[in-house]
Amino acid sequence: MNTPTNPSFDVAHLGHVEVYTDRFEESLDFFTRVYGLKISAQEGGSAYLRAWDDYEFHTLKLTEHHTTGVGHIGYRCASPEALERRVAAIEASDFEGLGWVEGDLGHGRAYRVADPFGHVFELYWESRRYEPDEDDRPALKNMASKFTAQGASPRRIDHLNLLAEDVAEFRRFMETCLGSRVTELIQLDSGRIGGCWFTVNNKSYDLACTEEHGKGQGRFHHVTYATDQREDILKAADIFLENGVHIETGPHKHAIQGTFFLYVWEPAGNRVELANAGARLITAPDWEPVVWTEAERKKGQAWGLKTIETFHTHGTPPVEE
Amino acid sequence: MNTPTNPSFDVAHLGHVEVYTDRFEESLDFFTRVYGLKISAQEGGSAYLRAWDDYEFHTLKLTEHHTTGVGHIGYRCASPEALERRVAAIEASDFEGLGWVEGDLGHGRAYRVADPFGHVFELYWESRRYEPDEDDRPALKNMASKFTAQGASPRRIDHLNLLAEDVAEFRRFMETCLGSRVTELIQLDSGRIGGCWFTVNNKSYDLACTEEHGKGQGRFHHVTYATDQREDILKAADIFLENGVHIETGPHKHAIQGTFFLYVWEPAGNRVELANAGARLITAPDWEPVVWTEAERKKGQAWGLKTIETFHTHGTPPVEE
Amino acid sequence: MNTPTNPSFDVAHLGHVEVYTDRFEESLDFFTRVYGLKISAQEGGSAYLRAWDDYEFHTLKLTEHHTTGVGHIGYRCASPEALERRVAAIEASDFEGLGWVEGDLGHGRAYRVADPFGHVFELYWESRRYEPDEDDRPALKNMASKFTAQGASPRRIDHLNLLAEDVAEFRRFMETCLGSRVTELIQLDSGRIGGCWFTVNNKSYDLACTEEHGKGQGRFHHVTYATDQREDILKAADIFLENGVHIETGPHKHAIQGTFFLYVWEPAGNRVELANAGARLITAPDWEPVVWTEAERKKGQAWGLKTIETFHTHGTPPVEE
Amino acid sequence: MNTPTNPSFDVAHLGHVEVYTDRFEESLDFFTRVYGLKISAQEGGSAYLRAWDDYEFHTLKLTEHHTTGVGHIGYRCASPEALERRVAAIEASDFEGLGWVEGDLGHGRAYRVADPFGHVFELYWESRRYEPDEDDRPALKNMASKFTAQGASPRRIDHLNLLAEDVAEFRRFMETCLGSRVTELIQLDSGRIGGCWFTVNNKSYDLACTEEHGKGQGRFHHVTYATDQREDILKAADIFLENGVHIETGPHKHAIQGTFFLYVWEPAGNRVELANAGARLITAPDWEPVVWTEAERKKGQAWGLKTIETFHTHGTPPVEE
Repeated sequence: MNTPTNPSFDVAHLGHVEVYTDRFEESLDFFTRVYGLKISAQEGGSAYLRAWDDYEFHTLKLTEHHTTGVGHIGYRCASPEALERRVAAIEASDFEGLGWVEGDLGHGRAYRVADPFGHVFELYWESRRYEPDEDDRPALKNMASKFTAQGASPRRIDHLNLLAEDVAEFRRFMETCLGSRVTELIQLDSGRIGGCWFTVNNKSYDLACTEEHGKGQGRFHHVTYATDQREDILKAADIFLENGVHIETGPHKHAIQGTFFLYVWEPAGNRVELANAGARLITAPDWEPVVWTEAERKKGQAWGLKTIETFHTHGTPPVEE
Repeated sequence: MNTPTNPSFDVAHLGHVEVYTDRFEESLDFFTRVYGLKISAQEGGSAYLRAWDDYEFHTLKLTEHHTTGVGHIGYRCASPEALERRVAAIEASDFEGLGWVEGDLGHGRAYRVADPFGHVFELYWESRRYEPDEDDRPALKNMASKFTAQGASPRRIDHLNLLAEDVAEFRRFMETCLGSRVTELIQLDSGRIGGCWFTVNNKSYDLACTEEHGKGQGRFHHVTYATDQREDILKAADIFLENGVHIETGPHKHAIQGTFFLYVWEPAGNRVELANAGARLITAPDWEPVVWTEAERKKGQAWGLKTIETFHTHGTPPVEE
Repeated sequence: MNTPTNPSFDVAHLGHVEVYTDRFEESLDFFTRVYGLKISAQEGGSAYLRAWDDYEFHTLKLTEHHTTGVGHIGYRCASPEALERRVAAIEASDFEGLGWVEGDLGHGRAYRVADPFGHVFELYWESRRYEPDEDDRPALKNMASKFTAQGASPRRIDHLNLLAEDVAEFRRFMETCLGSRVTELIQLDSGRIGGCWFTVNNKSYDLACTEEHGKGQGRFHHVTYATDQREDILKAADIFLENGVHIETGPHKHAIQGTFFLYVWEPAGNRVELANAGARLITAPDWEPVVWTEAERKKGQAWGLKTIETFHTHGTPPVEE
Repeated sequence: MNTPTNPSFDVAHLGHVEVYTDRFEESLDFFTRVYGLKISAQEGGSAYLRAWDDYEFHTLKLTEHHTTGVGHIGYRCASPEALERRVAAIEASDFEGLGWVEGDLGHGRAYRVADPFGHVFELYWESRRYEPDEDDRPALKNMASKFTAQGASPRRIDHLNLLAEDVAEFRRFMETCLGSRVTELIQLDSGRIGGCWFTVNNKSYDLACTEEHGKGQGRFHHVTYATDQREDILKAADIFLENGVHIETGPHKHAIQGTFFLYVWEPAGNRVELANAGARLITAPDWEPVVWTEAERKKGQAWGLKTIETFHTHGTPPVEE
């Protein structure tokens, strides 16, 4: 029964998320000046952004679009061979392999696959390491770039959250195509899975999927960057407040995964989180998914905060209710 | 040239450290009441201790002994097959395989191997998961046990530090026998390696080795547990102060690895650290070791603190200078 | 119009609050083991408690009673002469002077006065300074006692909150009898004052009064101790959670006064807060009260948390709705 | 013997410090971009600066000068009458009253007095409250201006430190002229006072004086702003590091006053501190000065850090040794 006991290790980590915006300039201002990411490049309607300690050229690709939501999700593989093994596994599966793409400013060729709900994933090996110029060189050489303390200034990309009509089916996709492990999940009384948290490495999750309650296809719930300390998130709440950013809920601590969180909406409406997991890691190779019942979820978040209604309804792009 | 590019993943994580003490009762009082670990069991001259979120039965085995220092170091493998692969690799090497032992209260059979400097490592798969009784059951089911906020109360084991006369040779041992990766190192002007930081997973290090300047064999520098926040370490400093614990140096931030740290000596003289790495992880599969020169190390720690003299000389067991 | 421009300085600080409980042993266990106050003495149905850096013998007098709520509130005057001046002012007023009482284990004779809503205040000069015995002596001599890090372990008493049917009249009482200044208030559209925050010194408030919506007389809203850091409150939330304490709301940041807060109910039902004001002080001698309109209050707390319904209804002792 | 038992309350708080610099542009860049103060105005060779929650027009007057050090120190009185009483007390004393000056952009007329070591103090009542324009208006109306999170971004002015050849005589000056109270002091074995900490209100100190070991006259040791949290100071250490600011010592916790601290030198050489006192206040009207012996001081700072040599020798302006 220990399906996820022996993860493949072929996928090393979440690489980047492409986020669509129909208010590009405002979104870019938010992500850089307020949220505190840095621009590596801007080209072809996209800005390539990264947190100060992200080692790759970009972890957020912000792309001008007619609406909001997620463009694609990139995971970096552990080696060229690992990438080949993953592609083989996908092609042997019943999921929709989309073939190779050339990559972009941030990485080389990548193999794309769509989940049954319309989200596009890509796997790649060849990555462009971020090389800071003189102005962005950090004082300590083990950091990826200078800590500029601009805005909320998170350290690195953490995870994203997608919406799917059938979370169990989404889980099968993640296990089959990415070799992800499930660390926690919500088991609804109906037998359905209400939410599922995945990881490919020691982070307790790099992707979550929660049930789509609207009529949307391939919708996006949020993307999250990690701060070094919880206090950074309290400070960020003041920064968001002073900058007129819509704070949706938090700061508080999730019951699931125990993450300290704060959710805001960037100007175009995409939900963005800051999170801090403390020293929590999943190191056990035989970690059993923690299963939360519907009754347990009714207790709210860790310290009793009730989950705000929009958290269940708001996704991007917006849909008619 | 990227030797450590493709780690084996066969070893999942640092499991436990056996620490010797010739003042058992005082050491045990320190580790439980002041440092804040919990006792899983006490048997045969040893106390089995763990931090509140360590998933295994124990991560520190405190053993009564005629002197101080380290007994053995345990790493858990990723699967039974992974363990076999490691044993095969060790037996094919020129390092000193010591054969199988039966394990103890915390885990099943383990294969032991000694490094050239007298430290004993063991690899195991069968682990005893800690099962909290009613009193120790956490409010949130994704935690390994109740958070009791006793003393410094770190979350989980983090790493240990050993002393060796020849760090380069120690590095060869770690790469060959454990499949560890090097994340950072100190390159001395003499061509020797002054210190080397290793990991088997996404933690930036789980073991460090620094050069032995005394006449010791198989000596121990320190063991470290991780706190969720840096503020926990500031609070712990007050707890140590009020309990008459010798604070050696800190709190401050290491230049190497960027860890926020505090070093104390437990009553028998073993050095013990509390550390917080913030959100730092090594996710890059092709991470290149960060190399620090002697000149760079002369700048002291991250914010300028000079490394205290005892940090270079004090190890356990003590040796004649 | 600047009535409070020139405060009398005759009253030095909030001294203590007497809290009634009809579940004495459980309340005492909460306040000591979980909340982290220390017992100075227990006598005559009362426990005398203080936080580790409170300089007086007690700041919380927990008294066995047939119900819950507040017994009396003590403020210490700045000198014997200041006390006499205050008594003279009270006796010259239309408020209900109750005459002198002998004091208790914690202080000498005190002059009592009742506000129009049934809360009893006392003013005193002669105070018993807490003298730690050997076991409780702090490592640093400028602290009032040892920092034991027991439970939430706040540093000192901060403020209390009372309920009154007519906050404007309560304000007249505080200005007349204690010489308190108003630092912030809520001006309802109806012309009534919804809440009012008072101080006698540089703290931004030591007492708040909010409108009683029930049929109660002399009711109590909460008592609060201050932590050194906001992180202490996040940690306390976990301690409360693990100890089955009812967390009512928080942690979050108040819009009014900007205090970071967490509210819980002790076992008998009295509301207890932990708060952190950061470095905020009112040093301006001509501070003008900050006036919040009803519309402004509808925005919720600083980062958007809506005020929980029980916050408006729950007081002690309980009343029929 | 309780001389300071009954402080006059005539002086409300430390108002501002004038700091001289011979590298004006660099100092101004440091204080605004890196340290995080805001400019209220620039005129006549001076920049008027304040922290985001300082209610007055300025708390730091940075003035172009041929050397470094302190220009003058301003304290605001509690009322016009209080100011008159202070002036009368000074004129009745043997200290050097310098008469009235007109004030500057930040306040009205002020009475000046020199201490015997050449530092100039001024007392004033009429103050210019800072009025934020639209861009600087805070989201919460009880804050003095917007929290912009620029650089270290402390909340308010905290204290300053002066050097004097005879600290006992300096103490007589502070008690006589300002009505300050002594909260802590260092009693040297020689009978001299090594250092003395003063306050006029509930802050545990607003001015410290330590013994001048050089040949200087009227020298300056440092000026300090308060942060809301200790974590802000850890974050500031990284900001200073990345901006090439000389970190002299810290972060650590003072034994005296228990303040968490970090000392840096601004580009012209003046020492600047960030400090956090947690929830510590002196509310006792009969607080007895805490007396530290020379032996006690030899233990170093609270957690054992030895006081760095430059801390005893470096003052501004520099003097020949």
